[in-house]
Amino acid sequence: MITPQTLKGFRDYLPETMIPRRQIINAAAEVYESFGFAPIDTPALEYLEILQGKGSDETDKQMYKFQDAGGRNVGMRFDLTVPLARFSAQHINELGTPFKRYHIAPVWRGENTQHGRYREFVQCDFDTIGTTGVESDIEAVLVIYTLFCRLGFKDQFVIHVNNRQILNGVLETMNLRDKSVSVLRAIDKLPKVGAEKVIEELKQTAGATDEQCESLLAMASLTGTNDEVLASLSQIAAGSELAQAGIARLRQILDGAKAAGIGDSAVQIDLSIARGLDYYTGVIFETFLTELPKIGSVCSGGRYDNLAELYTKQQLPGIGASLGLDRLLAAMEELGKLPDTKTPADVLILFFDSERLNDYIKMSVELRNAGVKVELYPEPKKIKAQMQYADRKGFKYVVIAGSKEFEEGKVQIKNLADGSQKDVPLTELAAAFK
Amino acid sequence: MITPQTLKGFRDYLPETMIPRRQIINAAAEVYESFGFAPIDTPALEYLEILQGKGSDETDKQMYKFQDAGGRNVGMRFDLTVPLARFSAQHINELGTPFKRYHIAPVWRGENTQHGRYREFVQCDFDTIGTTGVESDIEAVLVIYTLFCRLGFKDQFVIHVNNRQILNGVLETMNLRDKSVSVLRAIDKLPKVGAEKVIEELKQTAGATDEQCESLLAMASLTGTNDEVLASLSQIAAGSELAQAGIARLRQILDGAKAAGIGDSAVQIDLSIARGLDYYTGVIFETFLTELPKIGSVCSGGRYDNLAELYTKQQLPGIGASLGLDRLLAAMEELGKLPDTKTPADVLILFFDSERLNDYIKMSVELRNAGVKVELYPEPKKIKAQMQYADRKGFKYVVIAGSKEFEEGKVQIKNLADGSQKDVPLTELAAAFK
Repeated sequence: MITPQTLKGFRDYLPETMIPRRQIINAAAEVYESFGFAPIDTPALEYLEILQGKGSDETDKQMYKFQDAGGRNVGMRFDLTVPLARFSAQHINELGTPFKRYHIAPVWRGENTQHGRYREFVQCDFDTIGTTGVESDIEAVLVIYTLFCRLGFKDQFVIHVNNRQILNGVLETMNLRDKSVSVLRAIDKLPKVGAEKVIEELKQTAGATDEQCESLLAMASLTGTNDEVLASLSQIAAGSELAQAGIARLRQILDGAKAAGIGDSAVQIDLSIARGLDYYTGVIFETFLTELPKIGSVCSGGRYDNLAELYTKQQLPGIGASLGLDRLLAAMEELGKLPDTKTPADVLILFFDSERLNDYIKMSVELRNAGVKVELYPEPKKIKAQMQYADRKGFKYVVIAGSKEFEEGKVQIKNLADGSQKDVPLTELAAAFK
Repeated sequence: MITPQTLKGFRDYLPETMIPRRQIINAAAEVYESFGFAPIDTPALEYLEILQGKGSDETDKQMYKFQDAGGRNVGMRFDLTVPLARFSAQHINELGTPFKRYHIAPVWRGENTQHGRYREFVQCDFDTIGTTGVESDIEAVLVIYTLFCRLGFKDQFVIHVNNRQILNGVLETMNLRDKSVSVLRAIDKLPKVGAEKVIEELKQTAGATDEQCESLLAMASLTGTNDEVLASLSQIAAGSELAQAGIARLRQILDGAKAAGIGDSAVQIDLSIARGLDYYTGVIFETFLTELPKIGSVCSGGRYDNLAELYTKQQLPGIGASLGLDRLLAAMEELGKLPDTKTPADVLILFFDSERLNDYIKMSVELRNAGVKVELYPEPKKIKAQMQYADRKGFKYVVIAGSKEFEEGKVQIKNLADGSQKDVPLTELAAAFK
């Protein structure tokens, strides 16, 4: 006997988890498509040089890599952005720009499995490539907003928005522009380690003066309404054209969101989000659930100047974001937002009389033709066993009919939620479920 | 520069191929769910011993396998049946029986890439585990029938049905029962190599006599209506109880299919299908498109006695089938059944006046709220460029509005299929698309 087990860091999705997971995936796909993002797919395996080119030391270390039977060095993708860069460089002449795509697919990282992290997880990315227009920035906010409303989080999430140009502009005026990576890295830790440690790091790694540290910390800690934050920022960044352009862009995004009916409470300017390191060059987003801020951002992204510089000379600017499907699923579980069902069907037809098999089948087909999802129990077992099955799986209704009922041309519908039952003529069964 | 390319035998799916691919996947999922099959997912990577246990020499050779960073021997799944066996053995006590699941996921095989075969392809499997009831056999036929009707193949496909018990029963009467694998292997080649070569192989590998060969060939070549074939079979298999039981089962399946409204022309008994080797033990299916029989079966499966014998002592009989997604997609392309579009959206709003950005955004939100999938062009470019984009992507309509139109409170809708255009009041835009 071989022990049936999954690898460390990997998991099976049983129906009760896979049903809501599929609902989230379908919701993401439908929302992305409603904005004109087209689906694509790329291989799980790529040439190792393609994956190693853009990744950080960390992703290189975590990557699943090996030599295939043909002696090629290959790796399993660790995100959907590197494959998008390779894909775009390869096909952009055929695709044309602007190119809007979404991609929902598993990725693999040999991460430390503490903290409930898995080594296989699904990413749901959307990106618009080939344009620097602010419309795409606004649209990214709209997509995230629409998606979380659709998933049942209306008024229960906030999209935090920042613009890299602001910090970069301010750093220019401080003559610290070439230290931006160190500064970002330090500021990114503010919520976790506090101001004192961030100042220490800013001095050590970026060589910032006391005054500069104070200024940078003040900027990262700005709070208030969006209007207040923008007003304060304008003053702090008075000397920088780049920062002023970044501030103006944020204003346009807020105005566009308002035109789309999104209130200020759902989109907040937050200078403390830094969103990784040197990849993003413009607006950046993170999305937090108001009831579960500690699980971190559930949808993040931003604007970049050049997606595919390792694979093509053509400059491809763009903007996109990624929904953290499995993190969101865990959050929905914790918040009691998942349906408690192990079956996608609503109705179970019980099966008593094997002589009547074809009548049961007819019934099931009629219900399905009327749009009802219906399962027929596969064997003529005792009612107790079949009812236990219905309860365990979470069916909403059972349909009960034996030879007596078929002769009389009627069936019984039992509502498992409230225990009520009613008899309906066999000919009106489908109508009863409408 | 790193050359942007996919590995040999792997491919990207661009929007024009991915859009119909997603439609097939969604159709399969919806049909499976309408019968109560629940979605599951399993990891792409498994312990090598799990994957090697059940596979044939061929799958072992084709498998992508390596040692992970933790020194474990792992492999990428080459089908969804071995993972299902492992999954069932591991979780069956929690799941209970009957257990109905579907699984749509990629699998990997390092196959010879001739004949348009790819090394990564998606399988769409459904199985019912833990029952030997004939209802599940009938249901499998219904699922396949419903799916192909749903995909636009009504009256253009035939489900070929056989039952392993018939041949096995006949072989018993010939004292060739222990040669069944060799006999199946030989008969399976009948359509490809012809009777003479099959007889040669039957003699060599199974030690069949001339008379036995004749009898076996006659059985595999039976044609006529289902009733005629069953009648002939009853005579050939007169001496075998097992074969008679198999014939009776086929009768029940045909009767059940008829009760579900499926005509004899869509389900045909075909003794020539053998469907792989020793895994299946009862009814087996293959599905052929009447306009493209040469591409082979697009949906195949059957009944087995014991799914997970390598991983558990619990006997798990079941029945299932697998839709060959990518083969079907290729067939639909060849038959001109694929929509010619590169965007999931129907409507493109052209963008002329950057001062009016927020008005364009409002328009797009109103249309989306009315259920219209709509893209807003991301930059205020010349009309010619935007119209070319609309044509290239395959939008059905464009909405045209500049500052003059906004002032007058009206917009123009252009139908790209017939070139017609009409003006509608801005307030009635959503209604115009309903």
